[in-house]
Amino acid sequence: MTAKGTTRLKVTVMPKNGVLDPQGKAIEKALGGLGFDAVGEVRVGKVMLLDVAEGDPAKARALGEDMARRLLANTVIESFQVEVA
Amino acid sequence: MTAKGTTRLKVTVMPKNGVLDPQGKAIEKALGGLGFDAVGEVRVGKVMLLDVAEGDPAKARALGEDMARRLLANTVIESFQVEVA
Repeated sequence: MTAKGTTRLKVTVMPKNGVLDPQGKAIEKALGGLGFDAVGEVRVGKVMLLDVAEGDPAKARALGEDMARRLLANTVIESFQVEVA
Repeated sequence: MTAKGTTRLKVTVMPKNGVLDPQGKAIEKALGGLGFDAVGEVRVGKVMLLDVAEGDPAKARALGEDMARRLLANTVIESFQVEVA
């Protein structure tokens, strides 16, 4: 799906353990209200798919980690994971 | 990390191809502004981790798909994927 010399990165950003996740709590409640009683904890994060003009997967990944640290994640309260998709 | 008889599901929700993704566009611009010139298209979605009190992975997954269809995804504009995490 990507052109030659480009790499698709998948960056997943999740709230760190112990950090309050109001979005997750809201989903828990809403699912309970719909009768999904089996649902316990819900945590909500973001996933970003980025096309990067870098053919070397290792370099693309390093670039992704740099972008995550500088913009995509708030590393005080969020952890991130960069994969080559 | 989960108790016996529980399954952790990962539900990923992405905007469908062709659907405008303003969040992705904003990230593209912001990354360009930071000097990350190699970045092409960015698409942003949600990822949800749910603990479900169902020991059978296949049943848990079916439950996750039901939840995604009824609440977690807007299937008009979003596609979803349910995995056992």
